[in-house]
Amino acid sequence: MQAAPAARTHSTPQPGHALVDADLNDCLHTYEQRVRGRFAAVLDVLRTLSSCQHERDFAAQAQTLALQKLGFELPTDWLANAWVAGVDMAALHAHCLFQTVAQSVQQAGFDQSCWRARMPIGPQQWRDWGYHTLDFSPCADGRLQALLPFILRTTPAPHVWVKAYAGALFDVEHDVADWTQRELERLTGAIEGGAQLDYLKVAVYHYSSSAPCEQGCAAHGSLDEQAVQAAIERLVALQMAVDNTFGLGAAPQVLLIGVDTDCDAIRIHLPDASGQIHRTRFLDSATLYRSSFGMPAAAAQQAVQQALQRHVTELGGLAAKGNEAGLLALVQAWLIANFSQIEYVNRHHAGRYAVIGHDEAFVCAGEAVPLLHLRNQFYFAHLDTVEEGAADLDVGARIFQGLNVQRGLALPVLVHFTYNARVPGARERAVQRGLRVAQAIRARFSDLAERGLLHCRVAVSERQAGSVLEWAEHAVSAAAH
Amino acid sequence: MQAAPAARTHSTPQPGHALVDADLNDCLHTYEQRVRGRFAAVLDVLRTLSSCQHERDFAAQAQTLALQKLGFELPTDWLANAWVAGVDMAALHAHCLFQTVAQSVQQAGFDQSCWRARMPIGPQQWRDWGYHTLDFSPCADGRLQALLPFILRTTPAPHVWVKAYAGALFDVEHDVADWTQRELERLTGAIEGGAQLDYLKVAVYHYSSSAPCEQGCAAHGSLDEQAVQAAIERLVALQMAVDNTFGLGAAPQVLLIGVDTDCDAIRIHLPDASGQIHRTRFLDSATLYRSSFGMPAAAAQQAVQQALQRHVTELGGLAAKGNEAGLLALVQAWLIANFSQIEYVNRHHAGRYAVIGHDEAFVCAGEAVPLLHLRNQFYFAHLDTVEEGAADLDVGARIFQGLNVQRGLALPVLVHFTYNARVPGARERAVQRGLRVAQAIRARFSDLAERGLLHCRVAVSERQAGSVLEWAEHAVSAAAH
Repeated sequence: MQAAPAARTHSTPQPGHALVDADLNDCLHTYEQRVRGRFAAVLDVLRTLSSCQHERDFAAQAQTLALQKLGFELPTDWLANAWVAGVDMAALHAHCLFQTVAQSVQQAGFDQSCWRARMPIGPQQWRDWGYHTLDFSPCADGRLQALLPFILRTTPAPHVWVKAYAGALFDVEHDVADWTQRELERLTGAIEGGAQLDYLKVAVYHYSSSAPCEQGCAAHGSLDEQAVQAAIERLVALQMAVDNTFGLGAAPQVLLIGVDTDCDAIRIHLPDASGQIHRTRFLDSATLYRSSFGMPAAAAQQAVQQALQRHVTELGGLAAKGNEAGLLALVQAWLIANFSQIEYVNRHHAGRYAVIGHDEAFVCAGEAVPLLHLRNQFYFAHLDTVEEGAADLDVGARIFQGLNVQRGLALPVLVHFTYNARVPGARERAVQRGLRVAQAIRARFSDLAERGLLHCRVAVSERQAGSVLEWAEHAVSAAAH
Repeated sequence: MQAAPAARTHSTPQPGHALVDADLNDCLHTYEQRVRGRFAAVLDVLRTLSSCQHERDFAAQAQTLALQKLGFELPTDWLANAWVAGVDMAALHAHCLFQTVAQSVQQAGFDQSCWRARMPIGPQQWRDWGYHTLDFSPCADGRLQALLPFILRTTPAPHVWVKAYAGALFDVEHDVADWTQRELERLTGAIEGGAQLDYLKVAVYHYSSSAPCEQGCAAHGSLDEQAVQAAIERLVALQMAVDNTFGLGAAPQVLLIGVDTDCDAIRIHLPDASGQIHRTRFLDSATLYRSSFGMPAAAAQQAVQQALQRHVTELGGLAAKGNEAGLLALVQAWLIANFSQIEYVNRHHAGRYAVIGHDEAFVCAGEAVPLLHLRNQFYFAHLDTVEEGAADLDVGARIFQGLNVQRGLALPVLVHFTYNARVPGARERAVQRGLRVAQAIRARFSDLAERGLLHCRVAVSERQAGSVLEWAEHAVSAAAH
């Protein structure tokens, strides 16, 4: 269930932290309201339809309302048969969600242009700091699905990947393959200026500062220590796998970030001189925000920089593959960028989200939809097959048991894969993969499917452009039955 | 069901083709007899056990017989409880098969040393001819599982991969990843002399010359045209995927080979000057064998060479990425090497296998067991997940319905993955993958599993050494229930 978008306060804003970009926050807030508004409209329209589903002119009424409030039509035959036993509300709800996702993707160019123009960390920045690819593995948890533009103020871009797994337990072998592909592109000159650039892998765990035992990471039983330790182990395994295959020093740069899902503050764990990442040693953005609050911009900037330097000294140095300055610049930029997010939550969510737990609207399985970024809007399981991603999907299904199924709504799963338009046949293979995954999801959750409480839709989008969700037609017609 | 090994004929051998290596044939025949003998002994011992399973000292008798005839013990508790309702013969049969596979792998060093020393096409040869990796995708059909040492007389080696799929319909995306890994190794200097070397992808379809409509490729409904066309399409897709990602000319060298599963003769389809592989244009080893039969070695060699040159002229040239001489040398070597296999089948199988259809003893799923090479000994489905490899496994299960299940024996599936010992954690992840695949197989064939007619065992082996099958212990204890 989505909270209704809060009315924008027009009173004089309190003076904030000097390093906060209030304009960017405005852009993001407008974006959040727009997108959440679309999803809220779905519930609103469906409630209205429910109240008039047995009226004689229901189909016409419903269609008019949907077009007017949602901007798309509803399946005519579903409406026409409503007089018999009412509308299948679970199916209609899922259908509207999928349409709304497609709509939000289609309008992302417009919706996101304001904040995209103001993002402090974009392709030019991370290239200047020495990185050609940013590979994030947050938890699948919906509360992390605003990671890029909101929490880290980083531009979503073709080589910024978000591959979410329950508990941030990313697949080491798949990551090695992703690194290998980019490394080969780099060596063959496909990455401009690639000679000086590296691949950055970031694992992102999360915790809840106000309810650590209930609202932490479900995959780790809300045991923060375990979540952090497991993420560190995966990062080490990835480095070792690459180093042991392609020679010492080949491994990508790694970094660990923690997110407080109550308020979106972050912790950054840097690898010390020996390359070790420590569970309890990190820089905390909330602490830095508070300690530099009230300072003029330059002084605050300097305070963060000094804190960072002190931290590196305490660590005894930094494993940055000869790019200490670049890595520190990136980390400093993320810490400062996050000040804006802390203030965003302060201003628009009273310093702590009203819903600190799960509140997702749907599950996304497969590859991330590159144009959709919103906290708690969807649960995202990065996977190639249900067989490998079953644990991630099971966590998602459990969440929706509480959110939807208990009140008669379905588990809506958007299966999404991207393809490279330059590779002939790639689109067709992505569609096939999507259909296969959808079938496996129906098999895994057959108890829900049989009760009409699982709705699964398959879409693909082009990897570079990605501005349109293309529905796999077979899946659509299958889902209609 | 395995045919009993034919007694070696000690009469004076008929004079054969001058280019045939009769000594190598002897080595291979001894190997075939040794390995088949082990599997035949399993059936023999089980029949004996069946006849005495209700005798008072059955457990002791059985153990003695097994140790003596098979070289390993049987599970004591299975034997001890035989007096109640008899031995679970399906379980015992599967257990013995798995033990025999492990035994054959363990003794491969000894068993294979004779033929390995005499293989005409080994690592030095294919490197001299310009290739660092040979990536074969034959059909999963058991009749192709002697491809390397028998049909192509090519040494099984670490970078000679056999990735079998029903209908030779290999996974393009996985192949791109495999190529990418090797290409990166090549560019980073991990492949000695790699600067001059290329990756060769060979798709291998099959047909039956004597029963084309019944004993062709099951995945293509024994429609040879379709089998050839589908293989060509995959090769083209692979080339396009690489070329479109890494630049024109990056794609690996490709080749198409057809195998007549009646007699192991081969057809080689070369890509013409424009890179096109033609369905109906190929060099046929049986034709060349016959036309050069009776010639002295030098003349026969020359005849093959001339035929090859004529063929290339007819094709209007060859797409060999600047390595025409190397590719032709390899193709010529395979054609001539296959003469020995034609004669092998002539001598030891009367020119045509007694069983031209399926006669596999077990299914291997996952990655190939690098030390096991025998026609019709196992059906091999290369896969990472059952979700992706389901079609391949289904074909295998259908085959074993006829071979085993109808007479009360189980579908025995060996799940096997390799790992790189230099990568910490890789072994553990390979075991986990194996256990996951085994679980998915049990779920997919739950009707068989519930009737005790599916026995699945998980093993891993080190990729380079690979001399021991290591059982995943969990799987063993699970399978015992």
